[in-house]
Amino acid sequence: MAQKPSIPKGTRDFNPEQVAKRNYIFSTIKGAFETFGFQPIETPSFENSETLMGKYGDEGDRLIFKILNSGDYLNKANTEAYEAKDSTKLTSSISEKALRYDLTVPFARYVVQHQNDIEFPFKRYQIQPVWRADRPQKGRFREFYQCDADVVGSTSLWQEVEFIQLYDTVFTALKLNGVTIKINNRKILSGIAEVIGASDKLIDFTVALDKLDKIGEEKVKEEMLSKGISASGIEKLQPLFSLSGDFESQIESLKGILEASEDGKKGIEELSFIDAAIKELGLTTAKLQLDVTLARGLNYYTGAIFEVSAPEGVKMGSIGGGGRYDDLTNIFGKPDTSGVGISFGLDRIYLVLEELNLFPETVNKNVEVLFINFGDKEALFSLKAIKKLREAGINAELYPDAAKMKKQMAHANKRNIPFVVIVGDQEIASETYALKNMSSGEQFKIPLNELIQQIK
Amino acid sequence: MAQKPSIPKGTRDFNPEQVAKRNYIFSTIKGAFETFGFQPIETPSFENSETLMGKYGDEGDRLIFKILNSGDYLNKANTEAYEAKDSTKLTSSISEKALRYDLTVPFARYVVQHQNDIEFPFKRYQIQPVWRADRPQKGRFREFYQCDADVVGSTSLWQEVEFIQLYDTVFTALKLNGVTIKINNRKILSGIAEVIGASDKLIDFTVALDKLDKIGEEKVKEEMLSKGISASGIEKLQPLFSLSGDFESQIESLKGILEASEDGKKGIEELSFIDAAIKELGLTTAKLQLDVTLARGLNYYTGAIFEVSAPEGVKMGSIGGGGRYDDLTNIFGKPDTSGVGISFGLDRIYLVLEELNLFPETVNKNVEVLFINFGDKEALFSLKAIKKLREAGINAELYPDAAKMKKQMAHANKRNIPFVVIVGDQEIASETYALKNMSSGEQFKIPLNELIQQIK
Repeated sequence: MAQKPSIPKGTRDFNPEQVAKRNYIFSTIKGAFETFGFQPIETPSFENSETLMGKYGDEGDRLIFKILNSGDYLNKANTEAYEAKDSTKLTSSISEKALRYDLTVPFARYVVQHQNDIEFPFKRYQIQPVWRADRPQKGRFREFYQCDADVVGSTSLWQEVEFIQLYDTVFTALKLNGVTIKINNRKILSGIAEVIGASDKLIDFTVALDKLDKIGEEKVKEEMLSKGISASGIEKLQPLFSLSGDFESQIESLKGILEASEDGKKGIEELSFIDAAIKELGLTTAKLQLDVTLARGLNYYTGAIFEVSAPEGVKMGSIGGGGRYDDLTNIFGKPDTSGVGISFGLDRIYLVLEELNLFPETVNKNVEVLFINFGDKEALFSLKAIKKLREAGINAELYPDAAKMKKQMAHANKRNIPFVVIVGDQEIASETYALKNMSSGEQFKIPLNELIQQIK
Repeated sequence: MAQKPSIPKGTRDFNPEQVAKRNYIFSTIKGAFETFGFQPIETPSFENSETLMGKYGDEGDRLIFKILNSGDYLNKANTEAYEAKDSTKLTSSISEKALRYDLTVPFARYVVQHQNDIEFPFKRYQIQPVWRADRPQKGRFREFYQCDADVVGSTSLWQEVEFIQLYDTVFTALKLNGVTIKINNRKILSGIAEVIGASDKLIDFTVALDKLDKIGEEKVKEEMLSKGISASGIEKLQPLFSLSGDFESQIESLKGILEASEDGKKGIEELSFIDAAIKELGLTTAKLQLDVTLARGLNYYTGAIFEVSAPEGVKMGSIGGGGRYDDLTNIFGKPDTSGVGISFGLDRIYLVLEELNLFPETVNKNVEVLFINFGDKEALFSLKAIKKLREAGINAELYPDAAKMKKQMAHANKRNIPFVVIVGDQEIASETYALKNMSSGEQFKIPLNELIQQIK
């Protein structure tokens, strides 16, 4: 009967210290979301399969965890697929539900389903786990949390401005100074593609451009050529490869490249507006940077594209990202509802804070005082004091058994409990408590009110 | 492409107000868990199927949600089961993972898997969702949260005492006064069964006894008779049916019934110890009651059994329960590790607080102030003030579009935002803000520092 216990690959157990550190990040993000006027919603862990399938491309469909129907599920199995033993075709007839793959599609579903109860513009945040049947690797898990804030129902660019401020607020609160908030605009990318005569190859073009940092200019050009983008078109890109300087001078160069594209000019106008507003409002610790190679999530972003990278010197992919999508709720039958949102990458932020030693020392709400147990009489006397300590907000406990003193002290040590209280006959008679400071070794005999003061 | 969106039956979306109310309950419970020395852990949403299957009986196995293997899952399907189209037999060959059904079995798995890193006695709490393919009905869902606190690695009865205090602390903090904490002991039940010669019918016996409240003495006796318990045995139960009075007098009656059973006498001893300690320590708003008919979870409880019922007058099943189980980790190969724990029923507590109107008015962390947007110049000026308000911890936002004033005011009204700030040319020139109190209708023109004071 005994089994060697383990958990599925790509999943994790979190011990008390890890939970405390994760909650520190969650509550910092939540606090900022709320001061910015976002309100929380939650959606079910699993959705009807048709809500999710087809929304993330073929690869996404494959990575969605499907839940087997209950009962005699083979009874409704598609006969043709069953006889052909075709897994892909059989799935929809034996599985009607699936674990959520991200928070964006469920949010779009929520907005459409509850549209009559929602007052737009609607600012919501959502912090919940998602699941992906991805190959697990360092920093990539099959169950992980997403932390999203989105606004739907307004096209105002002030929201882009506020999201940049929100990133700055969160990373400042986490003492993670010097993050770079990179911004781009889908219209810049489509404008460039238009100008070089590659509008029909927008995805190939941006995928190649996105690699500029990693593989360099020559390789990017080779890739574009191999994808059928003309040599003369690539020639026109030359100023793009040497874009440099601050936001405004990059914008000036782009104006030259994009003067023939209406789309491109609109993108420049939007970026300039955002840059000017952020310059007026100021950022506390983050910096804003234009990055025309940024193309994440291009499939659905229609305006601004954001990505946040960790401070220089920390090797880590993006720790946040987002953008504007004009048609999200359309898939559920509600057109013309523009949305814009950002996301925080919890697991990577955790790794960065760990690497830079930025978690506060007090993050782990440990037990502050352990009462040694010498027997039932002493335990009862101790529990009366413990009750008062707890009422005063102090995390306190009694060692449950009258074990040897040495064992109980070792227990306090191993758990890094800072104070121990020892109660014997003498203390009971004098209504006092012997308080021992576990790091200094000092010991005092004091009454209850002083005990509370000392530990606080 | 458009779909009419919905969610799977038995699941729920939570809107901002509901999330806020749920979080109020969660954080009250968490706060109490921590002052009592419990520390949080989290386990994955899905476990390997063999971790869960066979732990909850046949009915439980059926109600566990199974996750379909990824990729060409039919490739490894059990040929015999496939040809016979036998759903039950096929499952384990096409599904290796399953959604967690409760928090107790994953906790047992955690303790065994990480036993070398855990300092025992180990006090953990865990607040996470669980999933059951149960028929949904009022108050019963397919996805719901459990809030559990358990101690493993000690047999001390002081823990039972502390769990009763913990219930009292949580319900007092929730202002839910007058709950009844019912307690029984497995050894009392097995003692009675022994005395009436029905040790081999312990489950039938307790199932029948458990119905005393609902169907009355005669029907209970009929059921026992029909299950093969002898008439002379049932005769011996007579004092049990008329048990009344306070804890101590019930104990006295039980002593008479159970004097021939060692097990029963041990149960009496344990209950007396707990009762005496609680009398010494006192409860703030809850009351402790002995209920010898209480038999929940008898399959694994070996000592104390707890159940909490809502205050009199509120129609609701139990809002909490728990008990001691001596062999929990044994299923994963770690014997002799006694555990005891309690659980809070979030959904039912929510319904009770709603019915008694006990949620604090301030539970919904709404936006406190909306700035009216008259255009880009005013918006920028407003955002400078909003930044300061947020830094002061005030939830503030700008209406994103320069819509008609009337529309913006209506938006503030619909969202119950208490303050609105109006900024026009005059205000910008004089660096002031027109603050309107939405309930009184009063309006003042004040500088920024006063604005912060007023809203706070």
